[in-house]
Amino acid sequence: MVFGNLGDDCATGVAFTRDLSTGANELNGDFLINAQGEDVVAGIRTPQQITLSASRQRAQREGCSEDERKERNPALEEQMPDCFEQLKAVAHTLESHYSDVQDIEFTSEHGQLWMLQTRTAKRTAAAAVQIAVDMVYESLINEEQAILRVAPAQLDQLLHPILDPEAPKELIARGLPASPGAVSGEVVFSAEDAEAAVRAERQVILVRIETSPEDINGMNAAEGILTTRGGASSHAALVSRGMGKCAVVGCEALEIDYTQQAFQVRGTDLVFRAGDLITLDGSTGEVFQGRVPTSAPKMESPAFKALMTWADRRRRLRVRANADTPHDAQVARSFGAEGIGLCRTEHMFFEGDRIDAVREMILADDTIGRMRALEKIVPMQKADFVGILRAMEGLPVTIRLFDPPLHEFLPQTDKDLEELAGKLNIPVGRLHTKRNVLYELNPMLGHRGCRLGITFPEIYEAQVTAIMEAACELTRAGITVLPEIMVPLVGYKRELEILRKRIAHVCAEVIASQGATPHYLIGTMIEVPRAALRADHIAAVADFFSFGTNDLTQMTLGLSRDDSGKFLPDYVSQGIFPQDPFGALDLDGVGQLIELAVRKGRAVREGLKMGICGEHGGDPASVEFCHSIGLDYVSCSPYRVPIARLAAAHAVLKEQMANERRTSRKESVKPSGAVLAQG
Amino acid sequence: MVFGNLGDDCATGVAFTRDLSTGANELNGDFLINAQGEDVVAGIRTPQQITLSASRQRAQREGCSEDERKERNPALEEQMPDCFEQLKAVAHTLESHYSDVQDIEFTSEHGQLWMLQTRTAKRTAAAAVQIAVDMVYESLINEEQAILRVAPAQLDQLLHPILDPEAPKELIARGLPASPGAVSGEVVFSAEDAEAAVRAERQVILVRIETSPEDINGMNAAEGILTTRGGASSHAALVSRGMGKCAVVGCEALEIDYTQQAFQVRGTDLVFRAGDLITLDGSTGEVFQGRVPTSAPKMESPAFKALMTWADRRRRLRVRANADTPHDAQVARSFGAEGIGLCRTEHMFFEGDRIDAVREMILADDTIGRMRALEKIVPMQKADFVGILRAMEGLPVTIRLFDPPLHEFLPQTDKDLEELAGKLNIPVGRLHTKRNVLYELNPMLGHRGCRLGITFPEIYEAQVTAIMEAACELTRAGITVLPEIMVPLVGYKRELEILRKRIAHVCAEVIASQGATPHYLIGTMIEVPRAALRADHIAAVADFFSFGTNDLTQMTLGLSRDDSGKFLPDYVSQGIFPQDPFGALDLDGVGQLIELAVRKGRAVREGLKMGICGEHGGDPASVEFCHSIGLDYVSCSPYRVPIARLAAAHAVLKEQMANERRTSRKESVKPSGAVLAQG
Repeated sequence: MVFGNLGDDCATGVAFTRDLSTGANELNGDFLINAQGEDVVAGIRTPQQITLSASRQRAQREGCSEDERKERNPALEEQMPDCFEQLKAVAHTLESHYSDVQDIEFTSEHGQLWMLQTRTAKRTAAAAVQIAVDMVYESLINEEQAILRVAPAQLDQLLHPILDPEAPKELIARGLPASPGAVSGEVVFSAEDAEAAVRAERQVILVRIETSPEDINGMNAAEGILTTRGGASSHAALVSRGMGKCAVVGCEALEIDYTQQAFQVRGTDLVFRAGDLITLDGSTGEVFQGRVPTSAPKMESPAFKALMTWADRRRRLRVRANADTPHDAQVARSFGAEGIGLCRTEHMFFEGDRIDAVREMILADDTIGRMRALEKIVPMQKADFVGILRAMEGLPVTIRLFDPPLHEFLPQTDKDLEELAGKLNIPVGRLHTKRNVLYELNPMLGHRGCRLGITFPEIYEAQVTAIMEAACELTRAGITVLPEIMVPLVGYKRELEILRKRIAHVCAEVIASQGATPHYLIGTMIEVPRAALRADHIAAVADFFSFGTNDLTQMTLGLSRDDSGKFLPDYVSQGIFPQDPFGALDLDGVGQLIELAVRKGRAVREGLKMGICGEHGGDPASVEFCHSIGLDYVSCSPYRVPIARLAAAHAVLKEQMANERRTSRKESVKPSGAVLAQG
Repeated sequence: MVFGNLGDDCATGVAFTRDLSTGANELNGDFLINAQGEDVVAGIRTPQQITLSASRQRAQREGCSEDERKERNPALEEQMPDCFEQLKAVAHTLESHYSDVQDIEFTSEHGQLWMLQTRTAKRTAAAAVQIAVDMVYESLINEEQAILRVAPAQLDQLLHPILDPEAPKELIARGLPASPGAVSGEVVFSAEDAEAAVRAERQVILVRIETSPEDINGMNAAEGILTTRGGASSHAALVSRGMGKCAVVGCEALEIDYTQQAFQVRGTDLVFRAGDLITLDGSTGEVFQGRVPTSAPKMESPAFKALMTWADRRRRLRVRANADTPHDAQVARSFGAEGIGLCRTEHMFFEGDRIDAVREMILADDTIGRMRALEKIVPMQKADFVGILRAMEGLPVTIRLFDPPLHEFLPQTDKDLEELAGKLNIPVGRLHTKRNVLYELNPMLGHRGCRLGITFPEIYEAQVTAIMEAACELTRAGITVLPEIMVPLVGYKRELEILRKRIAHVCAEVIASQGATPHYLIGTMIEVPRAALRADHIAAVADFFSFGTNDLTQMTLGLSRDDSGKFLPDYVSQGIFPQDPFGALDLDGVGQLIELAVRKGRAVREGLKMGICGEHGGDPASVEFCHSIGLDYVSCSPYRVPIARLAAAHAVLKEQMANERRTSRKESVKPSGAVLAQG
């Protein structure tokens, strides 16, 4: 036993071989004169800093003069210079030995330094990246080791601002962490108010019971979104993630009163009114009172770039992004996306005046009426596709044809319905009838996806025309485009067969009239369990498969993501779900089905291009699974692309390690086997 | 070439060797003197009867005297007795040769009889049964042949009244054939009116946009149900089928105006008011004006009984019924059910005052409140179970624990919600909040089934207490009961593990306190695709599997049965669905999954008891499939039990025939193979 409390020439402390917050290669830590380890931990006395620079930084923060500092809070470096030098040397030795940053407990007894314990230090994501990369440059580890030192999920911290961990916070309530980031702003209760406030250069948080497609512009204007209803796939969550916008959803503890322009925290007197400041943490689902300081994202650092380059060199899996607009496409590319795995075309239908044309289409009584409305939509969609395909020049862009049920495009409330009737100059009764006719008990399993394509061929034909006209225009301008036309919700080979024929026909017509021959593919989403079970048949008429793991999870588990919030917590806490199956792929169930489909599909069509485009594409464990079953790519939200890239590299390295272990095990087994055989 | 038009000693006609309507063993048919075949078919001249008895019957119908008849419409038997005797002899020869009823064209040229053509005659279901059985007694065919002569689906005609095919009919509209049978009655527009009318001994058809659980008593009172919305699994369809009550649903051509107490046929001036007579054909979905005469069911005939006895002797598959009440259980038993495969407990919750206790449970804020409400429900459910278990003495009864989402039990309209608030003496605002909290976007995939069992353990505990108290009471009274407690919507082994433990615990407690030890099983429905994929794991904690093919089809195909009406016709007509997948099991997709689950389940637990309890249990092709993959039983609506029994016998006989063909092919191949091997 050694003692740090035998007099003023004794001390005890904790040192870190590098800065655990930034990763800077500087020894740092705290110590106490004449004390034992418990005293440092107990927090009764305020410890001193190990290095002079840290001591001076603290003095500056506290407004101490250099003399006061020397008097009250000298550094180990100046108070016990010998001990400090010894510590530096030992720290270097330990770090070199373990090839990683160390968290060291030490004691100095009458000037003699003793090490009590050393262990690998915990660090922030920024530090993890910096340290891993520095250590490669210092030849302590190799690139592979550096890659494995950073957990892919950690990167999320670098891609979004985070709340200052030191800042004081007052928690109001907790919802579901729907889209990461940390933002503050004034409370507003409508999309219009959000837009108006932002025009007045105020930052706002849009607070709604739930959001609908009509709120898109307001959501875009707001800093963050807070809803009191809905789950991880609610409109608010999906749209926010797509926009890379911070969101907390399903925060059921808040009771909104739109007429009073206020929300109350259930079971308390706490009331927040329009204009009050709040802060959201989209990574934890927490909602705080007032403004909580945040720190900026770190993905521009050279270390980050170096690590990603090394990762990219090693991974086999391509990483694409889900993006619906030219802007999103550019963001995705800047994050390193190698194509778009899912471009949802219906989001384009809500922008500006387009919704009117879409509604006109829905309300049309016959094919002629629908075609007339679609003619207005085609040039708008074409412009979108030109923008997206141009932004992704030389990279594949998978465009999903119209997917949602038509009733999603009609106004929800009677008042809005009346307004629309006035605008379109038709009797409101007809609108009511149409809404009733379109009403569905379980819209997830209803008249949507390719079912609309089958019953209303003109919708897909118009979309394909827009895609191919855009592709031809860019091709003529010398820009390489690789559109992949994707049919959603296919369950039967015959569905795809019928639609493929029609799509190919439209493509051929556009190509013939435009004098350009862009390369294109026609494939399908595999998102209905039956499609996975019949993948061998469907593969015969598909150029590619894209596993829509969101819907595939909903159907395979019989679990509506929007409605699962009520029991999901119980299910996770009782160990039924190892984790939220919409966050990490359910490998045993949904994964089994995907594996089956990959095997069946490739048995019929060797080298069939396959990827996934659900939210799972950005989950590290799911990415490793996708690698292991031989998918070609994963596609995720732009803000998760770096995570997927790193995870894909991890998958390769872990596979190599497992193979090496197997090989070495075999080799060590062989000789004794040979002896046995001889004996 | 022979001629029947060379004078009055020539004739031509069509004869049937037996009566094709009743099956009676009597030669019959029509002929014309001095005519060729076309004349009989053309219908220009009214043909005469072949037999004297038929000629006399016709005369009686037309009010002719015997002299008039002889003059105007003599029979072949009396006009050309030689020819008649020849025809009788030939008919007998042909029938004996082909071992089946013949449809013969003949011509008599100057008294010489010539046969032009003979073929197997088409016949009604009643005739098919009668003829098949008679021919066994006549040693023309054996019992196996007789069984195969009757198509199982045909039996539907015998189990329900059918519309007189000869009667004049005026079609109003066509909906979905939701529940077979043919009924007439006065139009009423509410469940209350239906009940009142029936108390006044009037027969009524309940006409609704859709029905809800609150309409149960009215539905029970009405002769038939007609709805303008909903598909084959709408509330109206499911409940009607369960009750064996004729129903036409989703008849979208009718526009109901409840305030005017009238419905109009869209696009016409035709209006029907309360009190007007209409007729429904639940087998075709047709709705007719006025009363159309019907003929009674034929399942009491000795021939039918004989055929079913032969079928029962041969089948391997057991046939159970889906029944929710003691009355249904008795009906099921009378149709030959060998147990109940699905007893839904939630239907019991709607009867009379029970719904109040159920609502009290739903509105309770905590476990104590729910338990208090459940205490009121337990004795009521116990009484139901006593009735059902007693009715099924000695046979297994599978009781499914609470399955539907709770919001199904709250009133739909704001007005009803206010009424309920008054009744329960709670603020209406609380009810609104509760309804909003319980609201689900996709209730099919929401908080229901075992998910309720996990989050509100007291619900299942109360139900299991009721079941076991009933079982103990009957056991003490010397009645053998075989309850099988079934947990719905399981997707994860852990769900069943947790619930099984709780259920077994409650069972043990009741048994300990009641001094009786009834035998019971605890098993699960396999209705979530994941459950099928993980059947090997789930089998470890299940005493039995019951495939819920309705939900399994909905989830595997991503197809809401209620919402599929909008595109199902297109899907069938374009050849995507070979037929409605809710009518006949989708063998390629859902069937593949069931087969996988059977294999996986039995690999872990040999002899694991398995059956299906969806609507498919009454579909002949699906029954054959269930036989072929080794299920133990099928369960269907009571009125389809005879169909399933016959189909199960067909499955065995077809299998035997296929095996025999295989064996004989092998035998015929073997010798030459042997020669080859020698050569």
